[in-house]
Amino acid sequence: MSFNLLKGKKGIIFGALDANSIAWKTAETIHAEGGTFVLTNAPIAMRMGQIDELAKKTGSKIVPADATSVEDLDNLVTQAMEILGGKIDFVLHAIGMSVNVRKGRDYTDEKYDFTTKGWDVSALSFHKVMQSLYKADAMNEWGSIVALTYMAAQRTFPDYNDMADNKAYLESVARSFGYFFGKEKKVRVNTISQSPTATTAGQGVKGFNSFISYADKMSPLGNATAQDCADYTVTLFSDLTKKVTMQNLFHDGGFSNTGVSQEIIDSFSD
Amino acid sequence: MSFNLLKGKKGIIFGALDANSIAWKTAETIHAEGGTFVLTNAPIAMRMGQIDELAKKTGSKIVPADATSVEDLDNLVTQAMEILGGKIDFVLHAIGMSVNVRKGRDYTDEKYDFTTKGWDVSALSFHKVMQSLYKADAMNEWGSIVALTYMAAQRTFPDYNDMADNKAYLESVARSFGYFFGKEKKVRVNTISQSPTATTAGQGVKGFNSFISYADKMSPLGNATAQDCADYTVTLFSDLTKKVTMQNLFHDGGFSNTGVSQEIIDSFSD
Amino acid sequence: MSFNLLKGKKGIIFGALDANSIAWKTAETIHAEGGTFVLTNAPIAMRMGQIDELAKKTGSKIVPADATSVEDLDNLVTQAMEILGGKIDFVLHAIGMSVNVRKGRDYTDEKYDFTTKGWDVSALSFHKVMQSLYKADAMNEWGSIVALTYMAAQRTFPDYNDMADNKAYLESVARSFGYFFGKEKKVRVNTISQSPTATTAGQGVKGFNSFISYADKMSPLGNATAQDCADYTVTLFSDLTKKVTMQNLFHDGGFSNTGVSQEIIDSFSD
Amino acid sequence: MSFNLLKGKKGIIFGALDANSIAWKTAETIHAEGGTFVLTNAPIAMRMGQIDELAKKTGSKIVPADATSVEDLDNLVTQAMEILGGKIDFVLHAIGMSVNVRKGRDYTDEKYDFTTKGWDVSALSFHKVMQSLYKADAMNEWGSIVALTYMAAQRTFPDYNDMADNKAYLESVARSFGYFFGKEKKVRVNTISQSPTATTAGQGVKGFNSFISYADKMSPLGNATAQDCADYTVTLFSDLTKKVTMQNLFHDGGFSNTGVSQEIIDSFSD
Repeated sequence: MSFNLLKGKKGIIFGALDANSIAWKTAETIHAEGGTFVLTNAPIAMRMGQIDELAKKTGSKIVPADATSVEDLDNLVTQAMEILGGKIDFVLHAIGMSVNVRKGRDYTDEKYDFTTKGWDVSALSFHKVMQSLYKADAMNEWGSIVALTYMAAQRTFPDYNDMADNKAYLESVARSFGYFFGKEKKVRVNTISQSPTATTAGQGVKGFNSFISYADKMSPLGNATAQDCADYTVTLFSDLTKKVTMQNLFHDGGFSNTGVSQEIIDSFSD
Repeated sequence: MSFNLLKGKKGIIFGALDANSIAWKTAETIHAEGGTFVLTNAPIAMRMGQIDELAKKTGSKIVPADATSVEDLDNLVTQAMEILGGKIDFVLHAIGMSVNVRKGRDYTDEKYDFTTKGWDVSALSFHKVMQSLYKADAMNEWGSIVALTYMAAQRTFPDYNDMADNKAYLESVARSFGYFFGKEKKVRVNTISQSPTATTAGQGVKGFNSFISYADKMSPLGNATAQDCADYTVTLFSDLTKKVTMQNLFHDGGFSNTGVSQEIIDSFSD
Repeated sequence: MSFNLLKGKKGIIFGALDANSIAWKTAETIHAEGGTFVLTNAPIAMRMGQIDELAKKTGSKIVPADATSVEDLDNLVTQAMEILGGKIDFVLHAIGMSVNVRKGRDYTDEKYDFTTKGWDVSALSFHKVMQSLYKADAMNEWGSIVALTYMAAQRTFPDYNDMADNKAYLESVARSFGYFFGKEKKVRVNTISQSPTATTAGQGVKGFNSFISYADKMSPLGNATAQDCADYTVTLFSDLTKKVTMQNLFHDGGFSNTGVSQEIIDSFSD
Repeated sequence: MSFNLLKGKKGIIFGALDANSIAWKTAETIHAEGGTFVLTNAPIAMRMGQIDELAKKTGSKIVPADATSVEDLDNLVTQAMEILGGKIDFVLHAIGMSVNVRKGRDYTDEKYDFTTKGWDVSALSFHKVMQSLYKADAMNEWGSIVALTYMAAQRTFPDYNDMADNKAYLESVARSFGYFFGKEKKVRVNTISQSPTATTAGQGVKGFNSFISYADKMSPLGNATAQDCADYTVTLFSDLTKKVTMQNLFHDGGFSNTGVSQEIIDSFSD
């Protein structure tokens, strides 16, 4: 299915690691919808991933950038405009990583160097990306910027650790920068709060499979998949959603507004 | 601009009164995107409106129905499936009216017969519409139901009167019915919380023009227009948003997440 | 434990049915904290309840009133001021009843006469109570009005039926009327969103015991009891919370902001 | 007015700078309510402040601590328990500072060293404080921890700069740590989202006086003062609010749920 919804639109996609990642699916879907883009990832993530394959498939160039480095981001923005031949219409930020989670530190036993590093990668990087775009005046009017987030920013999931706090910061950055980007450049900024998704990155979280199963049973329409998220992101990059901004949009089959589902309550009735 | 996003989709549109109304613009936009539909309105509203013109323009049939009458709604659902030749993919509920507002009663001086009538028309009608659809098993899987609402459901706007409470009820119905429609029929239900819009219906609210101007100054992207709302509704009826359900979606140029804008604060700095 | 927090304060308490009800516990606690009050309930509820015992225990008078009857409420307000010797400082609204639930009608099979009756009793009654107080200028400055609600107003609990929508309306009334009561009379209006509580009224809801157990496991501090709610209500009636208004206050041991607890997730990990 | 609400309770109060600060008023009010505590502040803030006067007035000891230093915090917790003769019942975190604001950097022109420092002081410090308390098992059961925050965490106020994002992080920490502190130690954690308050710290924010005036006109009960906040905090430290946890509590005269007030809209009607 393709509607040419993004025909003529140019963008930057962060965080495509492998074929399981949401950013990867989104890149493929944007390509199918007529959009063109530059792919970017941290040099270290690129070595592990298969991003070359995606670039080939979608006719895209890759510009490596550490999303915590202002220098790298400034360079990325400049190069993206050169490669794409003009200003940017859409940006996808799909980056997140908790060093505390990776190192097995509990939330009540954080190592603060780890916390700071994870915050920089997962949350502050979104501000840095937007500040580089803003200063370079790199966005077209009515452009659209989306970051992926998770509902742990609103409610506690014990294994989600400091990523909850990082996502809360990220969502706040979307609102704060969305205000200025809206006023000054007519650019919208939103976050998509996605169902837990079986990406390679998600695997790192303890008890993730049980949790995915739980979330699926709690969601009247079931969990949203990576492909569902790609489709939804396309609508937010299209010209049909020009006045949606500074929002955190739940894309989760109804999980966020379900207090409890019948399946879950049934398992407590014996 | 047209993408054929709704090609082959069939629906019912409530509340198209005249060319200023959101439902009217949405009908035109859905038509342009390849969808077909039945138009409906209360018999009394139809006499005042120019809905015949819209029907002609979009090749649609009109089935009058009082949205507070279960009998009328059951008949509407049956007829719509006959006319469209099958089950329904999308429904737009754009109905609202406060008798207290019309009669000039303050919120602290409600006449409760008026309140009950307004609640029935503006809020309970949404339940009635969905119950008729549900009982007739009239919705296709992955169908989409949308009702229009306003942020007064969350925050008080003094002139919005009992419509605030009606909209809160309406949004709750979207969540509650969305749960069951999701579980049983894979149908999604959402509300769009739209900027104040200069429709004929909106004119009834006291001080509406000042308020529209205020909202525009508070919204980083300006107020969303009726056409913007039509475009956004199309995305929610498309197959690209299948896992969005039970949500209240702010479509307001950023108003809802702006604490205060520079223009507003500047007017208080002298 | 008693602090004389409500010494000299006068109020009206709706909804004390028997010793399990939250309003009953609240009445006892207010009495212990030095407050005086009139008890009221629907004539029919009074026949079933043991409210005389509570009146004796707390030295209170009882004024029967159907909370859907403006006449009864006007009379109640007048009598309460006479009995208490002056204006009112606090009001507790603890009334709710769904005819659909009682009659075993599913949410997707509502009988709308039942729906309307339940809405009038559970939701509109709160507006009627406040309008009677407002028109009679019966509240002292810095008075406090509280209604009990439940989180089903925000998220769907399948067995909660149309009470979810009623509670959403009730919470909206708190905000809407809170605006005018604040501006004009310096009176605050809030709702307490309480844990599921094993009251006599709560028993009517299907699967209620399983649900209470589920909620307890989901709440880091466990469910809030009726006595906990009474204590919390006392703080909201005291002079220490004068600037809290138009809020819906979750009183639930943390349930509302817990995405999932370890106990719940563990039950899905086999 | 004093009720002995905190008789026998022991605590730690961060952030009392001078007689305008909320923490100062809270310390005085807690003292009047029978609580005892240790005062703490950053060494540099202490030199500027008049905290000795407060200590004398309330019979308190001062333990200097940089709230970004785990070592200082561990020492503070140990010393506080020694001085107070046992475990802690309440903690007030009233700390916040944006280097970007101080240095006049716009939100779209952040210097990231400044951002990181401000985040550490204003947001991460709250985690550090709780982690020190948690590891030392320093809190009594049913203890209460409160941090002050501001609604910029939910909605953008253009001059609030990166403090918005810091407050969003802080509020998330309250939920995340509140989960574990609740489960493991029966300790509750909440944030109070206070009206803009004319403290010495608040003065640093550009256009602050206009903003205070705007907020006052938007709040049906007017802005909450520092003394109001002290009173409210006392209720959260008392035994009457044991089941309130992981909440962000708006204490703002109704600002947060007012879409627009009559005064504001009137100024747009000419």
